[in-house]
Amino acid sequence: MLVNCAAYQNGRKLADIPIADISEYLRQPDCFVWVALSDVTPDELAQMAEEFELHPLAVEDAQKGHQRPKIEEYDDSLFVVLQTLEPEPETTNGDLLVGEVDVFAGRNYILSVRHRTQKGFTDVRSRCEREPELLRIGSGFVLYAIIDAIVDRYFPILDELESSLEDAEDRMFDGTSARTRIEDLYDLKRRLMTLKHATAPLMEAVGKLVGGRVPQLCVGTQEYFRDVYDHLSRINAAIENIREMLATAITVNIAMISLSESEVTKRLAAWGALITIPTLIAGIFGMNFQHMPELKWAFGYPYALLLMLGIDLVLFWRFRAAKWI
Amino acid sequence: MLVNCAAYQNGRKLADIPIADISEYLRQPDCFVWVALSDVTPDELAQMAEEFELHPLAVEDAQKGHQRPKIEEYDDSLFVVLQTLEPEPETTNGDLLVGEVDVFAGRNYILSVRHRTQKGFTDVRSRCEREPELLRIGSGFVLYAIIDAIVDRYFPILDELESSLEDAEDRMFDGTSARTRIEDLYDLKRRLMTLKHATAPLMEAVGKLVGGRVPQLCVGTQEYFRDVYDHLSRINAAIENIREMLATAITVNIAMISLSESEVTKRLAAWGALITIPTLIAGIFGMNFQHMPELKWAFGYPYALLLMLGIDLVLFWRFRAAKWI
Amino acid sequence: MLVNCAAYQNGRKLADIPIADISEYLRQPDCFVWVALSDVTPDELAQMAEEFELHPLAVEDAQKGHQRPKIEEYDDSLFVVLQTLEPEPETTNGDLLVGEVDVFAGRNYILSVRHRTQKGFTDVRSRCEREPELLRIGSGFVLYAIIDAIVDRYFPILDELESSLEDAEDRMFDGTSARTRIEDLYDLKRRLMTLKHATAPLMEAVGKLVGGRVPQLCVGTQEYFRDVYDHLSRINAAIENIREMLATAITVNIAMISLSESEVTKRLAAWGALITIPTLIAGIFGMNFQHMPELKWAFGYPYALLLMLGIDLVLFWRFRAAKWI
Amino acid sequence: MLVNCAAYQNGRKLADIPIADISEYLRQPDCFVWVALSDVTPDELAQMAEEFELHPLAVEDAQKGHQRPKIEEYDDSLFVVLQTLEPEPETTNGDLLVGEVDVFAGRNYILSVRHRTQKGFTDVRSRCEREPELLRIGSGFVLYAIIDAIVDRYFPILDELESSLEDAEDRMFDGTSARTRIEDLYDLKRRLMTLKHATAPLMEAVGKLVGGRVPQLCVGTQEYFRDVYDHLSRINAAIENIREMLATAITVNIAMISLSESEVTKRLAAWGALITIPTLIAGIFGMNFQHMPELKWAFGYPYALLLMLGIDLVLFWRFRAAKWI
Amino acid sequence: MLVNCAAYQNGRKLADIPIADISEYLRQPDCFVWVALSDVTPDELAQMAEEFELHPLAVEDAQKGHQRPKIEEYDDSLFVVLQTLEPEPETTNGDLLVGEVDVFAGRNYILSVRHRTQKGFTDVRSRCEREPELLRIGSGFVLYAIIDAIVDRYFPILDELESSLEDAEDRMFDGTSARTRIEDLYDLKRRLMTLKHATAPLMEAVGKLVGGRVPQLCVGTQEYFRDVYDHLSRINAAIENIREMLATAITVNIAMISLSESEVTKRLAAWGALITIPTLIAGIFGMNFQHMPELKWAFGYPYALLLMLGIDLVLFWRFRAAKWI
Repeated sequence: MLVNCAAYQNGRKLADIPIADISEYLRQPDCFVWVALSDVTPDELAQMAEEFELHPLAVEDAQKGHQRPKIEEYDDSLFVVLQTLEPEPETTNGDLLVGEVDVFAGRNYILSVRHRTQKGFTDVRSRCEREPELLRIGSGFVLYAIIDAIVDRYFPILDELESSLEDAEDRMFDGTSARTRIEDLYDLKRRLMTLKHATAPLMEAVGKLVGGRVPQLCVGTQEYFRDVYDHLSRINAAIENIREMLATAITVNIAMISLSESEVTKRLAAWGALITIPTLIAGIFGMNFQHMPELKWAFGYPYALLLMLGIDLVLFWRFRAAKWI
Repeated sequence: MLVNCAAYQNGRKLADIPIADISEYLRQPDCFVWVALSDVTPDELAQMAEEFELHPLAVEDAQKGHQRPKIEEYDDSLFVVLQTLEPEPETTNGDLLVGEVDVFAGRNYILSVRHRTQKGFTDVRSRCEREPELLRIGSGFVLYAIIDAIVDRYFPILDELESSLEDAEDRMFDGTSARTRIEDLYDLKRRLMTLKHATAPLMEAVGKLVGGRVPQLCVGTQEYFRDVYDHLSRINAAIENIREMLATAITVNIAMISLSESEVTKRLAAWGALITIPTLIAGIFGMNFQHMPELKWAFGYPYALLLMLGIDLVLFWRFRAAKWI
Repeated sequence: MLVNCAAYQNGRKLADIPIADISEYLRQPDCFVWVALSDVTPDELAQMAEEFELHPLAVEDAQKGHQRPKIEEYDDSLFVVLQTLEPEPETTNGDLLVGEVDVFAGRNYILSVRHRTQKGFTDVRSRCEREPELLRIGSGFVLYAIIDAIVDRYFPILDELESSLEDAEDRMFDGTSARTRIEDLYDLKRRLMTLKHATAPLMEAVGKLVGGRVPQLCVGTQEYFRDVYDHLSRINAAIENIREMLATAITVNIAMISLSESEVTKRLAAWGALITIPTLIAGIFGMNFQHMPELKWAFGYPYALLLMLGIDLVLFWRFRAAKWI
Repeated sequence: MLVNCAAYQNGRKLADIPIADISEYLRQPDCFVWVALSDVTPDELAQMAEEFELHPLAVEDAQKGHQRPKIEEYDDSLFVVLQTLEPEPETTNGDLLVGEVDVFAGRNYILSVRHRTQKGFTDVRSRCEREPELLRIGSGFVLYAIIDAIVDRYFPILDELESSLEDAEDRMFDGTSARTRIEDLYDLKRRLMTLKHATAPLMEAVGKLVGGRVPQLCVGTQEYFRDVYDHLSRINAAIENIREMLATAITVNIAMISLSESEVTKRLAAWGALITIPTLIAGIFGMNFQHMPELKWAFGYPYALLLMLGIDLVLFWRFRAAKWI
Repeated sequence: MLVNCAAYQNGRKLADIPIADISEYLRQPDCFVWVALSDVTPDELAQMAEEFELHPLAVEDAQKGHQRPKIEEYDDSLFVVLQTLEPEPETTNGDLLVGEVDVFAGRNYILSVRHRTQKGFTDVRSRCEREPELLRIGSGFVLYAIIDAIVDRYFPILDELESSLEDAEDRMFDGTSARTRIEDLYDLKRRLMTLKHATAPLMEAVGKLVGGRVPQLCVGTQEYFRDVYDHLSRINAAIENIREMLATAITVNIAMISLSESEVTKRLAAWGALITIPTLIAGIFGMNFQHMPELKWAFGYPYALLLMLGIDLVLFWRFRAAKWI
């Protein structure tokens, strides 16, 4: 589905152009074409491939989808795969929907293809159109702007993971609902891995646009890509941090479960003693010996009950002092 | 066992040729020989070694089999070892049968030797024969096509591992059949390691065909090998992901076992109390004191039973409220 | 909020200067301007950006805050982000408040911006003013002095973490209060990760000022930055050490909990035996057989009680010998 | 102890020569001396050091023994330390006896010194003498042959470790003899570490003979050393695989122990209920109320017994259905 | 405290010289000064700094102490920090006392400063004075000799750690005293980390003296430093080995604790059954039914006792067969 197709010159929009004219505009000097597609059909993609002369292997990847984030160089053009993460609309447990954005970036064009992603890049286009002196830099800057927008959308997800971890930590030592806690931690781990899956290979790929030999396209926008790289390394450091705390938290939860089991055992044993000792006393006075003088006492029975009660009170007090009950 | 032996010129098949003629065809310019063997005998291999002038160490490796995936350079030829993974035919638990494909690739020949592998490479040959402009590139492209075909066959296995993990996750918190869950996770781990064993060294080896100094054979097919490399890194990233989730899942399962043991302990203790407290009461009314007025009451016995029942009902209600029962 | 704004020449302070004059002083040869801000407003920062001609991406980072430690090169100037750690004022559990110091360092200026940090850098300024021969080196030395001061403030925090670990180790095997111990270890882990978060990326960043191609600014102060680097690697090695001991300590604690549960089980079982065996004896003598000669003995009852007591004494002595009680 | 001392020319054995003549033969062109010692005395080693002009640090290492595997270059000679692994003769639990072979390799000599190793290298010598065209290559080939022989002897040990792991896996879920299983896994881990200790540093060392700047001695035998390197990397990959499966297996065993404890708890509780409920009923009918009509029924007693039995049968059936018994 | 201060020429000792003359001797060609200090005061160190013209940052490090091992280059001199490990004198649990030796090495001088270290380096000095041809090499050789001596002193500590681990392994499966075993393992871990802390950074630092660009001082002693490096890598490999076995051992201990708890549970349950079943029988014969014919039998009572005993014997035999008792 075509979302947008426009030509730019010197940082200013010329016009929305029909797809068939793309190759003509590309031949004009200083002219720059920016096309956005969404959930593309094979036919649309084939048409684009023809207009932009895209590399067949890149087109095949874009067609298949489900790539991991990467930046590949084909001659003087780049093929960039990015993953978008959006909260699943129907659920409330924070599950993440993984979408994909493929960007073909040439000397004088940008072609972006969205898959399974609700939020588009109209804000990126508006921002670029508002700053013609930056847009004039060309496709390198637009590529940066798209990657930057996607990376910025990772931060709220990271924040939510961090606050989920803090929630789990706050509830860790209150002893209730170990089962829910463990479920939450596992769920958090899964979402964390999803985020890591999107950001770790992207960081590696963007790193290649910053240092060493840089594709022609990105020369002059080095500092911008370094900024994106820095954001990604912040995200990845935070992910590592959460990951390590998560592992510790799960281990600590196991310890807490053992501990609370140990405490339950003690409490049960204490209550058990409070029941079995009177039972023993009752058993003794239930013996059938002929010569058991206390059985004939007028107050033998209440005495016996008091004895049971007294022993239990002493025991109860001692168990309470030992914090078993 | 000879599967196929054909000569090609300018990307088109000349003829199926007898083994003895191979060395002659190799001497013709622009001629390309492609031989496929399966479960080879030492004699066949010796004959091939002679015709193609293969390096003795490579031949020894192909003879012995059970190599790990690797790509070795001998002068201007390559010796490639690949592992194939196929579901074991008789079992249903997803166990994988590890086969091996050894490829000798020279400037103008490809010799592939399959071991313990059911599925051959006729589809690869057909694909190549359908695209003469690619086959004209020569042995580098055929080598790519074979490796690509094998790597593509890893994806369904990876998918099955991922869905096995998801199954295990779904059943993780439902509290039934911890034993089966643990067995499944261990089994999953084993299959995962088998896949990793096949793909991790291959990725490393293919990486050497992509960057830096590249063997002469693969010059001009760089982008194709990078594509294979990218597939392999996707597989390996997914393996790492599954591996980490598996480790967490096993730990979480241990937690769940402890937790369910703790819950069983509480439930047992609750039922224990419902039995032992009436026993105590019965013991008390079974004492032999002469002066126990309630023993003479007309309704003493039903009262006693009601007392037992009443206490049990109160306890039951409290245990239920505390979710012990 | 402006904390300080002064111009220096040949290592000696010329005067406190108004902000508006900064750009003039910067134009004078040999003149050096050092400005300190704290919890800056966007307007103040914009004014500074204009006077010092700061790079917009660096200004944006300083405005947003919450960066991870880094050192970025913009042409011939550096942008440095540092994290400060201070004990939270209201709490006593050692929680750390993370602040941030951003330093813009050019050929002849230093601009530092503090966020959420109580302690300033007046001591650094005094030290530098006391040593004019070092201050004469220029902004490289001042930058070193600021980083060094912040790194030195990490050491007391590290010492506290180490002594917390030692405390936890001392209490590990005394069997009391496993819950508190685990909570302390988890808390320690969190503080450790906070410290690591501040120091690990900083070490990496400072490392780039030491070896290889060094920014112009830091030429001539190599040995000073190597000293900071060395301090940071000491801190990081200590962090790794604590981290590994912590992981072991948590595992050992789980072992201790299991062990103490096992000991409790034995003790309970021993006490249980001391109750249930006399109950059995009482039950036997409570049977209603007509021919139970001992029931008619004059001392049958005391004998029975002695039997109970005797068996319990023997058992008690044996349980004690086996260290069950 | 001298095992063998021979001179070779053009790949053919000249003669067994006395030790004192070694230095003379070394001075002849094309002449090659190969000496094998076993459990050497300091005097023998000193004599060798003199004849071959060995480096004192290498001699010291050979004298002391207990080195880790390494390959050190001294001018134009190599000093190689290898570990041999042999099953301990008296035990049957697969414990490994670690021996050591030190090889001094110069331009025209090989001196090997065995320590605590039963199996010598006569097979290596025979193989070399059978292939004069290879032996003619010189000391580089002999060095390869010795290393190759030792590495080949690691494979049966690896196979045994792998089959030990498979045994342990097969018995993992059958619920019997957890103690033996854990002991076996720990034992396996120990043997694995012994093998790793022998092979990991050797792989690293051999790697230096393959790529980059190669010692003069090994020029022309590159492909042979790469073959050894490949064998070593296969062993090391298998070791890593076993190591990871072992760690998982131990964790899974802990889960199985918890699980089987949990099952035992349930079974015990079920049997406990089958005993305590009839005890309660007996207690009720043992109460001394005057008005308990059922006590006077002719068949009261058998009814009571049937009641007990009936309740137990129902419970037994329900416990069995819940798989508690 | 001055331990030693001597001047050497051509590998032979000239004289013990007063501190004030050091700078004069340093000016003489071929003259070499070697000074040893112990637990130095700031004044002594300042005097040395002046005589040897030491770098202020190195002097500051030596003054403060508590550095991690490192080798730093200042112009043409080296500053080396080493950690010494000595068993704590008062304790017997193998705790290690960490001392420090700082060595300043220049072209023609060695200055060593010991902190908290009992054992000095008189043996190193004697060894060097005995071998004038080596001492003639100059400060590089003396530096080697000192580092070598310290590294050699790590081996007995490593041996003790290894034998501690073996002890722990031997006792691991005998089922007694899990608490002590766990304490020992944790203690072992602590000592191991102390050793690692001393050796790991030193290995890294010495590695820089061996390969690549080597400080002028160490040219000509390369093989000696490689020997030290080799010893350090042996120590570090052994540390890694112990570390991994320790982690496994702790995990296995947790398994053993669970297992022994499980066995205790079974034993207790068995004994419980031996008590509660006779109690049930006694309860049945204690019921007050009028028609219980066996109560009137002459041998009813002994029969009942025999029944109890018989059931217990059968149960005991079955529990024993199942290895529960």
